[in-house]
Amino acid sequence: MKSEPINLQEKLRKISQLWTPKVVAQMNDYHFKLVKFQGEFVWHEHSDTDEVFVVIGGEMKIHFRDHDVSLRQGELFVIPRGVQHKTSAVAECHALLVESAGTLNTGDVRSGQTAPVDDWI
Amino acid sequence: MKSEPINLQEKLRKISQLWTPKVVAQMNDYHFKLVKFQGEFVWHEHSDTDEVFVVIGGEMKIHFRDHDVSLRQGELFVIPRGVQHKTSAVAECHALLVESAGTLNTGDVRSGQTAPVDDWI
Repeated sequence: MKSEPINLQEKLRKISQLWTPKVVAQMNDYHFKLVKFQGEFVWHEHSDTDEVFVVIGGEMKIHFRDHDVSLRQGELFVIPRGVQHKTSAVAECHALLVESAGTLNTGDVRSGQTAPVDDWI
Repeated sequence: MKSEPINLQEKLRKISQLWTPKVVAQMNDYHFKLVKFQGEFVWHEHSDTDEVFVVIGGEMKIHFRDHDVSLRQGELFVIPRGVQHKTSAVAECHALLVESAGTLNTGDVRSGQTAPVDDWI
């Protein structure tokens, strides 16, 4: 089967709900996901995988227990496995995530923000 | 150590040579690389990893033996492992690559376009 290019903005337009990462591509056993979010997420960690955020629209923060990191469009950050963190955005932010397939958005925590895993769009 | 965000455009400005992917981040045993290129690459394949291209400036083609794929800025494509391909760009193109750490740009081939592996910037 011939694959088509994945247009990130076209995929984003299909996402209406905040905080629900949608898988757009698989590379080996890793998923590329798009997510829209605004406000504040829950503290959590992923014990078995690093997690990459690439901001493709807006601005966000990644909060760690001892410091915060601010990210703008075109910036990338690697959250190390096993490190507690939460994300936040004052205005709606759009990001590309890369992490192991099967990774739950809230990691070791279940909350109202826990989204379906491996949910393709 | 507190990591800083990785600004993709700032990193790109430090790359002067075409066809030489530079590592900007590591996630588990995967590398995120930036590359500038123009013209045509050599036919090659990566037998042990899929390879993701995300175009962050310009336009490119990925040629397969039986078809071509055209990619514009903001588009992503997964090249499956073990499939012969070559990239090309009429004008200078900038891309973010994601693939296993240690992946050689020319895969199973050695040519004048073979670049140092795991070369951080």
